[in-house]
Parts: sequence; structure tokens; C-alpha cells
Amino acid sequence: MALIVQKFGGTSVANLERIRAVAARAKETVAQGHRLVIVVSAKSGVTNRLVDEAKALHPTPDKREMDMLLSIGEQETIALTAIALQAIGVPAVSRTGGQARVITDRSHTKARISSIDGDEMRERLKEGKVIVVAGFQGVTEDGEITTLGRGGSDLSAIAMAAALKADVCQIFTDVDGVYTADPRIVPNARKIPVLSYEEMLELAGSGSKVMQSRSVEFSSKWGVVFEVRSSFNNNPGTIVKAESQDMEKVVVRGVALDKNQTKIAISDLPDQPGTAAKIFTTLAKAGVNVDMIVQNVGRAGIVNQTVTVPTDEAYIAEKAINELMVDLKGRITACDRVAKVSAVGVGMRSHSGVAATMFEALAKAGIAVQLISTSEIKISVAIDPSRADEACRVVHDAFQLGEG
Amino acid sequence: MALIVQKFGGTSVANLERIRAVAARAKETVAQGHRLVIVVSAKSGVTNRLVDEAKALHPTPDKREMDMLLSIGEQETIALTAIALQAIGVPAVSRTGGQARVITDRSHTKARISSIDGDEMRERLKEGKVIVVAGFQGVTEDGEITTLGRGGSDLSAIAMAAALKADVCQIFTDVDGVYTADPRIVPNARKIPVLSYEEMLELAGSGSKVMQSRSVEFSSKWGVVFEVRSSFNNNPGTIVKAESQDMEKVVVRGVALDKNQTKIAISDLPDQPGTAAKIFTTLAKAGVNVDMIVQNVGRAGIVNQTVTVPTDEAYIAEKAINELMVDLKGRITACDRVAKVSAVGVGMRSHSGVAATMFEALAKAGIAVQLISTSEIKISVAIDPSRADEACRVVHDAFQLGEG
Repeated sequence: MALIVQKFGGTSVANLERIRAVAARAKETVAQGHRLVIVVSAKSGVTNRLVDEAKALHPTPDKREMDMLLSIGEQETIALTAIALQAIGVPAVSRTGGQARVITDRSHTKARISSIDGDEMRERLKEGKVIVVAGFQGVTEDGEITTLGRGGSDLSAIAMAAALKADVCQIFTDVDGVYTADPRIVPNARKIPVLSYEEMLELAGSGSKVMQSRSVEFSSKWGVVFEVRSSFNNNPGTIVKAESQDMEKVVVRGVALDKNQTKIAISDLPDQPGTAAKIFTTLAKAGVNVDMIVQNVGRAGIVNQTVTVPTDEAYIAEKAINELMVDLKGRITACDRVAKVSAVGVGMRSHSGVAATMFEALAKAGIAVQLISTSEIKISVAIDPSRADEACRVVHDAFQLGEG
Repeated sequence: MALIVQKFGGTSVANLERIRAVAARAKETVAQGHRLVIVVSAKSGVTNRLVDEAKALHPTPDKREMDMLLSIGEQETIALTAIALQAIGVPAVSRTGGQARVITDRSHTKARISSIDGDEMRERLKEGKVIVVAGFQGVTEDGEITTLGRGGSDLSAIAMAAALKADVCQIFTDVDGVYTADPRIVPNARKIPVLSYEEMLELAGSGSKVMQSRSVEFSSKWGVVFEVRSSFNNNPGTIVKAESQDMEKVVVRGVALDKNQTKIAISDLPDQPGTAAKIFTTLAKAGVNVDMIVQNVGRAGIVNQTVTVPTDEAYIAEKAINELMVDLKGRITACDRVAKVSAVGVGMRSHSGVAATMFEALAKAGIAVQLISTSEIKISVAIDPSRADEACRVVHDAFQLGEG
């Protein structure tokens, strides 16, 4: 007998039929002798509708009132899910974030969980009840309703699993698991059975948006084993857990693609200490998330700096840099969309030649590499977006990820 | 400066435009120097939609989960109303029933308020904030969400006014106030400026469904002065308060009509002690609300009993009585729809001849009276439903209620 936390997102509870499917799956889990906590999101579409209503009344609605408003989405789902469970003979009880004692700080719309008191829930579980908890929401010490921001329901589930010392947290979603590459782009991509937190983070950070990084980091911190799996079938998904020795046998676990990057090249910067600091401080103040950074020294005393930023922040970044150039005397020489292709795997730590294999494969295919950046378990290249899908397939093949 | 509680029902907050109107009215009230608490219902239609969803999942959904589900209706409205207030520069903050410390018993879907702790709200009011409270809902001592049943938002407002010792509780609705008769039936009906709790109760109990009796009783018990007025205009409404000497000057305050009554006549009952008790115990067990009761002794040793019940309970009542007749040997001789016309006024206590005036007027119009029942401040007659509207006008005229 295990204690399992199952999390269902908005599309998995979008209507009564899907809620019934969630209940049926829970019934199976209980029939196998497990204790069960279900964490649910708002029905897909509900949150957007509520945001639209609020914004029709006020361009920048008060965050405390937004949390009051948005939290009703999950509250609807927990009640309906509990009723659906009871309808098929499964004892169940719902809990708002506050009732589940998910205590957060006071940062409305992006609150951080400070603690979860699982005592009351443990009692209900002992009574054989399935507990249906509202994801995405919590409560401050003094009873104010808060929400956790984007991806908050995943975070709720992971935190719940940590608090209750659950054996596993199953994240049900509209994908089957984490793949060696996006199967729509790389037809022979395979589902990855087991993955380390770090690999998951690098894959997520590089465009495979199965889960928010924050939830993965939280899992890693609290040692919560989670499984990403589909709510539409019974296939085993991808298990994500702490790195173990045998994980290093695989050099590259997967290939990630991010098409939403823009490269900004700055030339003719003075080769002085503090130049780079000025650029990155300016970008940070403007709220721009810099991804890849490459610097090289050109003619004597002149430095060239290239960064990539999310495309939707490129305009702000360009503006901020141009303002800075008045002082620094450099100039932007390019601002082009690029695609970032990354190979990720903890095996890189103990295997050499990974970069060589990757660059060779790209060169063979005639794909020019514009930028390179590396971390301990990742190699990323920026390339022309028109060759992005091809580059993915090339790298995927180079590491034989499509083979069983 | 007064402390005012304003309550807006579902039609008054049905959409964003109406919520803006509620906010605008609140702004006026605040501009006049008053402190303000607003109690709102769910948008009209929302509660029904949620009930339908729950019933699609389970024919008799768990009451605790229904409260969890239904309470989101008001939570949406309070957040939107607070945002609408902030949008026009009025400092405002929303409170769920639980946050407003509306503590109830555990009777889910029909909970009773046991206390309201107004301390926190008083602090917010002192800060100059308008507090927007979710009507219809409360919370048990251990944090379970409860709802108060039909008319619960009125009750919330009255209870809030009592707890905060408000000067007045304004109940905004889709009618202008309480009228001497239904203006759709009696064209010269006039709005009643002031009314006693008892008169309001008798008028409400006799078909003028402006407010649930429970809320009026609560107001009377706690001495809350309330005003029924329209959310669509600025006309003064009807003030309802404790009876005062000068109210007795008016003999009849208003005429009420209830077309939803069915008369059940039982004949040939044995004239034995306990016969009536058996009938009313049986009806009470069947959940039937008996209204008028008339008993007369016919031939020696035989009793005839006639009752009126709400028409939608007539079938159950008839069935229950028929089962009882196996023992009692009586028989149902009639089961017909009737209309009940009532004249109500505290002045009846000190004026004689009221019944005579009423019966004379009806007789003159050729309207046969089938049953009569009286209370200290009310005289009711059951008549043929086809003459109901006419009877209303006749009684209204007999007491000169249409004259200024």
C-alpha cells in the first residue's frame, strides 16, 4: 500500500465527463489498496474568463482581490470531483488550499508556500477517504487567500506529496511523459522512463515545457519522486527523481528546442572591467531574462558581446541596451531570431567528446552554429530558426536517442 | 455619519454593468459621509448552473460538497465588486463569509448563524474601507464552509447589521418597496413608507414574497431596522422596524394574495379527542406546511376538517391523509385550488369592525368566502382562484388603501 498524490490540470477536469474520468482513475488506484490525495486545477478556460472580468472593471486589479477571484476556479473543481467520487462509491472529501493548511507568505498572485500541516489530512486518509485538494492556492497565517502563480497546481501537488511523505506524486497532463525530443518534430523520439531532477530542469528550461522549473526545483529540494503521465491513457509516464549512479550510463538523455529566442550582438565595446556588468545590470533592471551569453575580444581593446533573450522581451532589451550605448560607445550590430538546440544528460559529466559529436553532426548537415553555451549537463547551440527542426533530428540521431 | 449595510441580490449583480452600478451607489453613500458594508449574492443564474453540474454527477450530492461548490458564486461577486469600487477610487476589501467571521452550526445547505465577530471589520471600516461581504455563506468553528439556505443573503445582511450595530440595513431588490397590494393586480396600490416587523411577516407569509420570513424574524429579534428598496432607482423604499404607537392609526396596512393554495376538506371524522392531532402529525411527518385550518362539527359525533396547503404539496398531503383515513374512517370530500386574500395591519388590535368591512365588501361583489382564518393582525379568506384579483381590488378599496 502506497500513499499517492495525483495532480490533474485544467484540461483533465475541463468538463463533467473528464471529471468522471478522474474519479474513475482514482477508484482504480484506491482498489489497488493505495491511499490517495488528488490535487486539481480550475477547469481550463475558467481562470481566463475571471481575469477578463476583472480587467474589464480595472486595468490593474488589486492582487489580493484577484486571488479572491481566481481561487474559486479550483474550489468549483474540488467540489465536483468529490461529488463524482462519491457517485461511484468512493468516500471523498474536498479541501480548499486554506483547509488543506497550505500556508503561504503574503505575496498575492505569486505566493510562496511556507508550510503545509498534513495532520488533519492524514486522519481523513486513515478513515479511507480520498482527499481532493484545490491546487494553485493557499492561505496566509491570518486567513487571506493567496495563489501561487503560473504552474501553481503542480507546486501544490509536489508540496502536498512532501508534507504527507507520499511515495509518488503523479502529474497527469496532456502529454504521455517526457520525450527524448518533441515527437512532432522528431518522429522517432522515445519516452524517457527515468530522469533526474537536473535533467528535467535543463530540458524544461530549454523549451520542453512539461512543468514549471519551480515545481521541479521544489521536488528536488524535498526529494519528492514524481511521474509525468497522460490523463487520457494508462501508459506509464516518465519518473523524475534524484540522480543515481546508473543514470550516468546514458550520455545524452534528450534534445530540447527553444524557438522563442532572439540574439542581440553588441560590438565595439571598450575592453574595460565592468562593461559586462553594466550591460547585465541594465537588462536585469528592465526585467529581461538573458539566456546564452558569449563574449569575445576582437581588435585590441574592443570587446564583442552577444546574448540571447526571449523574443517577447527583445524589444525592451534592445531599447535598454541602446540607451546604455550612449555611455559605452558600443553599438548593436545584430538583433535576429535564433533557435536554441540543447543536448541534456547527466552522463556528460563522466563522458568526453559529447560536444564534438554534436558539432560534427551539425556541420555534416551544413547547419551553422552561431553561439555555443554549455553547463555541466547541457550543451546548447543557437542556430538559424529555419533549420531548427532539422537540427533537432540531427542531434537526436547523433546520440542514437531514437534507438530502443 | 451612519453605519449602513447594503445588500444586493443576484439580479442586482448579474453582470459587470450592474456591479458597476452597485459600486457607483456605494460611492455616493460614502460621499455622504457614511461607513458602508455591502453584502452581495451570487450573480443570478450562477447558483442554478452549479446545482445542475452537481446533479449531473450525483442525484443527491453531498451537502457539505454542495456548500463548497455554491459558495464560489458569492466569492466571485465580492471580488468583482471590490475591484469595481477600487476602479472608481473607493477603498474596498472583500470578505468571504468565513473571513467575515460569520460562524454557523454544521447544518450544511441550511446552516444557522451562531455568531458574527465584527471586530476585524470595525477596524477596516475605521480605516475608511468599504467591506464587501459574501452573503448566503458562513463557516463552522472548524473551518467548514456552510450556506444559509434560501434567502440566506438577506439573513447575512441583517445579521451583519446586528453584529456591527448598523443604523440601517438596506435591502436592494427588483421591487421598489412593499406595496399595499401587488401593483400588477391592484393599479392604485401605493408604496408603504413604514411597516412593523409583524406586518411584514404576515404580508410575506401571505404571498408578498419580498423577503423570507426568517430574515424578518431575525431583524425583529435583533432590532435591526431595514429598508426594502430598488437597485434600479433612487426612490425611498419601505422601512421595516419595531411597532410604534402611531402605526396603530392605520387599521389595514396592506392586502396580500396567495394563489398557490389548495384546500383539502375531510368529512365524517369521528368527534374524538386526538383526531385533529393525528391529522396534523401525519401532515407534519410528510413535510407538508398546513396554512389555514377550519374545523366544524356536523351531524352528531361527526367532525369536518378543512385545511389549506401549498399546491405543490397537495399531492403528498392528499396521499398521507388518505392513508390515515383507513384508521379514522373519514374521507376527503374536496381537494381544490383556492386563493387566499389577507388584510394585514397592527391597527386591527385596537379597531373593531375590520372583519365586517372585509366580508361585506366581498359579499357585495358576489365573491363567496370558502374559509376564514384570523390572527391578531390579519384576516384571511380562501376564495375561488378565478375571483382572486378582483377580491384583492375589492378589499384594497374597502380599506381605502389606494388613497393618499
